[in-house]
Amino acid sequence: MQLGMIGLGRMGANIVRRLMRAGHACVVHDSNPEPGRALAAEGATTVDGLSAMVAAMDAPRHVWVMLPAGAITEATIAQLADLLSPGDVIIDGGNTFWKDDIRRARELGARGLSYVDVGTSGGVHGLDRGYCLMIGGAKDVVDRLDPIFAALAPGRGDVEATRGREGRDPRVEQGYLHAGPNGSGHFVKMIHNGIEYGMMQAFAEGFDILKNASGPGVAEENRLDFELADVAEVWRRGSVVTSWLLDLTSQALAEDGDLSSYSGHVEDSGEGRWTVQAAIEEAVPAEVLTAALYTRFRSRQDHTFAEKVLSAMRKGFGGHVEPKKA
Amino acid sequence: MQLGMIGLGRMGANIVRRLMRAGHACVVHDSNPEPGRALAAEGATTVDGLSAMVAAMDAPRHVWVMLPAGAITEATIAQLADLLSPGDVIIDGGNTFWKDDIRRARELGARGLSYVDVGTSGGVHGLDRGYCLMIGGAKDVVDRLDPIFAALAPGRGDVEATRGREGRDPRVEQGYLHAGPNGSGHFVKMIHNGIEYGMMQAFAEGFDILKNASGPGVAEENRLDFELADVAEVWRRGSVVTSWLLDLTSQALAEDGDLSSYSGHVEDSGEGRWTVQAAIEEAVPAEVLTAALYTRFRSRQDHTFAEKVLSAMRKGFGGHVEPKKA
Amino acid sequence: MQLGMIGLGRMGANIVRRLMRAGHACVVHDSNPEPGRALAAEGATTVDGLSAMVAAMDAPRHVWVMLPAGAITEATIAQLADLLSPGDVIIDGGNTFWKDDIRRARELGARGLSYVDVGTSGGVHGLDRGYCLMIGGAKDVVDRLDPIFAALAPGRGDVEATRGREGRDPRVEQGYLHAGPNGSGHFVKMIHNGIEYGMMQAFAEGFDILKNASGPGVAEENRLDFELADVAEVWRRGSVVTSWLLDLTSQALAEDGDLSSYSGHVEDSGEGRWTVQAAIEEAVPAEVLTAALYTRFRSRQDHTFAEKVLSAMRKGFGGHVEPKKA
Amino acid sequence: MQLGMIGLGRMGANIVRRLMRAGHACVVHDSNPEPGRALAAEGATTVDGLSAMVAAMDAPRHVWVMLPAGAITEATIAQLADLLSPGDVIIDGGNTFWKDDIRRARELGARGLSYVDVGTSGGVHGLDRGYCLMIGGAKDVVDRLDPIFAALAPGRGDVEATRGREGRDPRVEQGYLHAGPNGSGHFVKMIHNGIEYGMMQAFAEGFDILKNASGPGVAEENRLDFELADVAEVWRRGSVVTSWLLDLTSQALAEDGDLSSYSGHVEDSGEGRWTVQAAIEEAVPAEVLTAALYTRFRSRQDHTFAEKVLSAMRKGFGGHVEPKKA
Repeated sequence: MQLGMIGLGRMGANIVRRLMRAGHACVVHDSNPEPGRALAAEGATTVDGLSAMVAAMDAPRHVWVMLPAGAITEATIAQLADLLSPGDVIIDGGNTFWKDDIRRARELGARGLSYVDVGTSGGVHGLDRGYCLMIGGAKDVVDRLDPIFAALAPGRGDVEATRGREGRDPRVEQGYLHAGPNGSGHFVKMIHNGIEYGMMQAFAEGFDILKNASGPGVAEENRLDFELADVAEVWRRGSVVTSWLLDLTSQALAEDGDLSSYSGHVEDSGEGRWTVQAAIEEAVPAEVLTAALYTRFRSRQDHTFAEKVLSAMRKGFGGHVEPKKA
Repeated sequence: MQLGMIGLGRMGANIVRRLMRAGHACVVHDSNPEPGRALAAEGATTVDGLSAMVAAMDAPRHVWVMLPAGAITEATIAQLADLLSPGDVIIDGGNTFWKDDIRRARELGARGLSYVDVGTSGGVHGLDRGYCLMIGGAKDVVDRLDPIFAALAPGRGDVEATRGREGRDPRVEQGYLHAGPNGSGHFVKMIHNGIEYGMMQAFAEGFDILKNASGPGVAEENRLDFELADVAEVWRRGSVVTSWLLDLTSQALAEDGDLSSYSGHVEDSGEGRWTVQAAIEEAVPAEVLTAALYTRFRSRQDHTFAEKVLSAMRKGFGGHVEPKKA
Repeated sequence: MQLGMIGLGRMGANIVRRLMRAGHACVVHDSNPEPGRALAAEGATTVDGLSAMVAAMDAPRHVWVMLPAGAITEATIAQLADLLSPGDVIIDGGNTFWKDDIRRARELGARGLSYVDVGTSGGVHGLDRGYCLMIGGAKDVVDRLDPIFAALAPGRGDVEATRGREGRDPRVEQGYLHAGPNGSGHFVKMIHNGIEYGMMQAFAEGFDILKNASGPGVAEENRLDFELADVAEVWRRGSVVTSWLLDLTSQALAEDGDLSSYSGHVEDSGEGRWTVQAAIEEAVPAEVLTAALYTRFRSRQDHTFAEKVLSAMRKGFGGHVEPKKA
Repeated sequence: MQLGMIGLGRMGANIVRRLMRAGHACVVHDSNPEPGRALAAEGATTVDGLSAMVAAMDAPRHVWVMLPAGAITEATIAQLADLLSPGDVIIDGGNTFWKDDIRRARELGARGLSYVDVGTSGGVHGLDRGYCLMIGGAKDVVDRLDPIFAALAPGRGDVEATRGREGRDPRVEQGYLHAGPNGSGHFVKMIHNGIEYGMMQAFAEGFDILKNASGPGVAEENRLDFELADVAEVWRRGSVVTSWLLDLTSQALAEDGDLSSYSGHVEDSGEGRWTVQAAIEEAVPAEVLTAALYTRFRSRQDHTFAEKVLSAMRKGFGGHVEPKKA
């Protein structure tokens, strides 16, 4: 099957590679010519713009946009929409806000174009491990694109089957899900990332408590000193917390036992924030997912203004003068 | 190797079975005669009391206590200590508070007895899957007991090796860890459970937001309706949140899509609380682990008194009269 | 000064009363004729519609809209805008989302109308205690309306002066603030309510811990039993937590010591949610304000779906069967 | 009435002054001779040790210990107990852990000594404003000391009476409370401080969001810039958040509008931690009080280890390399 790919960053380029390995034909473009040249050497048709891509493809066209969510994706889709013909399909595989999907699908639909939102998980390991795909869109369009999704998904692998799934959608056990109408794909991906934040923070706090178990706050006779790399590794077998995130933590600790090569400045992307917004919209308490987000906000500041307000009050009522950090 | 086992509940009995499968000889006792009879039929030597157990064993004896943490374990160990001889070893495989281990080891050591604290993870699946063991105690004693631990641990299995662990303690990759001196085993297990609470709550909140995405708080054009069993299943392959807890969630949702067979009343055991206490003792912020604990507290009440205080204030300043629940 | 008031609920009617006490002339309207009749008896000019109000007023007109935030306020302002003339002013005294103010001010400004957003705090006590006003809008318009704001504000009262405010805007010490351009008034009011939620929750949790100090979780020799009404009252003098919210709590506890007349079902209004959204937009960690909001969400449910997910996992790995609530 | 005071720091010395103003006779001691000299000039009998104090006092003696909670208080009380005679009373006015009070009262009672635990709020303003006193101990002893407590308490002042308190303990409205048996005084004080932390954090977060409303995260057309000193001041009259902590915040912001003289490093004392421990012991969810504590822990670190764990995982699955702080 033929697919156009716009955006050849780490994710886009590897998606193209995984598709070509499965025998699909890819027409590719990126504003930076480098990755397109590399992919051309591997069999892709590299074009130098959107018009050229449209011209190079057979109708009905399927064009996957894999760009940073927000203005650049929005503008590219608008430009594409002007070039494509009724019956063509635009796939947004980035981390777009799900309400933008719903709006876009309506706008593009009015022009005879189909739209599919795909949440794509897998990161740098996806080329080999496959991509977990969460898909939103009309049934006929998603069905038509099935060969693409099947090629990208991880496949059943050696993961033990869940009992009682007989008769349910078999694609799900291959690692891709048609989650519902437009917006559904990115909504599920958003929640995936929200959960990811929470799980990461759970591990992070646990290792922090282990790390400080020999610290000055603990009475001397109770101090314990742990080899964190070993703790992470032992949990990988037979424990309740076995998970890919634990595997990665064990790997990181094996390489750098006190993680001194990391600053601790932690970025966040839109999904964590949108997850909290969805929780608030739905009136669902989401303490853990929110706390995980706030930790990242806090990590990027030297001191919050809030903390200075606390110090100011403490001086006001108690005459406390807080020590300055060295 | 010979091992005594006191306490033949779900965990204790299956530990005995796994040991006997590996060729170890077990002398067992429980206040309830039922499980001992069953194990006798499988090859165990069942005795009817602690004195009988001590008499039936060869010195130096190794007696594993697998009872509910707290008073009953404490009393049993005290009674055992009076019966055992210098050189014998008491192993506490339950969920004991780590500071109690430190104290006990000191007290028992003064009497010539050795003490080993073992955090045991694996639950109802441990018999087949193996038990992840986190061990605290003196090196020579832990080394002596290695055949026991090796038999109980899951073994390396098909879990992908962590790069860069060459030269490190190979037992860890078998699924058991000598974590340090007494208290270390239960400390690591405590943190394991604390992390478990946080991960569980991360998944729980994520699925709650998915569940309510079609709810009345969401504008009609944005409502989405998800098949939660499929969402859980698709994440099992290739996503960042792959984990055993996700496997279990997928299983539960496949069986009961809206979990209507569960009340939502959630118990907690000591480890979650002790994890928070350790965090406070060490001055480590642990928002996620704490929020996960508090959710459980809240789940067991109809309404908190705190909520009534809020209602009372709202009536006081705004004249708001809160609706009563039906 | 003449003011039109649309919306004669608890807040609107008392604002009119306080203005008339200060000698201002009020033209009033509500879709329900009752409160207008009552105010007519107290000296207001009651009209039966927006057109009648506009006809009854002298240009430039100042019309205060005091309606539930959202669709009804939006529609009323749109309708008013069609009736008013350039130079007239619309004041929104409700709890409007601040970004709506910014948009509205732009739209109305294009038609020659001025817009002022006023956050109004004071609740049922405002008639006597005065209203704390947080005002957003153009300087000349806000200055023109000063007699209205001055009459509504509490005045300096017997509140001790803050040192070092000499030379600063004296209106602030009267209890009204021109906070900045449009949107500023409702932004400050939003934060006021966000803080209010956090403070309320702080008191609520504190009293909950006091209430349960004699509960079954506490070892028998440590159980303590408190007279909560007395605890609240004693803190009203000389303590660090003296506050109006504490006064109200003391009052409520004096009337109903265990608050059994309250269900504990706690509503929330938009400001608490918008505060969290603003925090997220600005990447400011706001744990306390968010937790206070989530408590309210939780209070309105029998059990969350999240809690059922926890129970399901616990059954999955540990065979735990949670007790059902009676 | 005669009172002995051990510990003449800021709190102890001012308590003595307030007592002498009310006509009480004070025998005072501190390991540092300076404050005792000053108080001698104001009328106190200054002695140079505990034995001298006991010798200088009439039986039955009442000795108030006002020292840092923990080892020093414990040791001083032990030493005093050896010197005092049956019928004498030891008062601990510091911030002692309430379970220590229960134990101490039992131990001292066995020796014929009485013990009273007093939580004392008022800080640097107590000399003039009076001290809010929360008292635990036997009724007859607390009654005997009433002249002392009445002199220290703020008195009714101009605080509006709570309706419906007729017939209740009138001392409460004077600002002192006999909260119950030993431990009760410090328990109530502990909760007071826990609430204080939560309220402080609520204000701190609110001002942080106001401060960042013009920041880069906000779309340019929505940015708002606030004069925080004015916002704090306007809320002091007629708003729902009026409180002493707000008064102090307004004062601090009037003096230093961006609080640049504060580092933002925030200490915590035992009460905040004990409050969380009590909540956990009682299974009461206390999200806000806990979050307020964790903010302080976080404020004293450059980066937590937890944050480095997050960075390490993000690199592991996404290849993300976090920026280093400048």
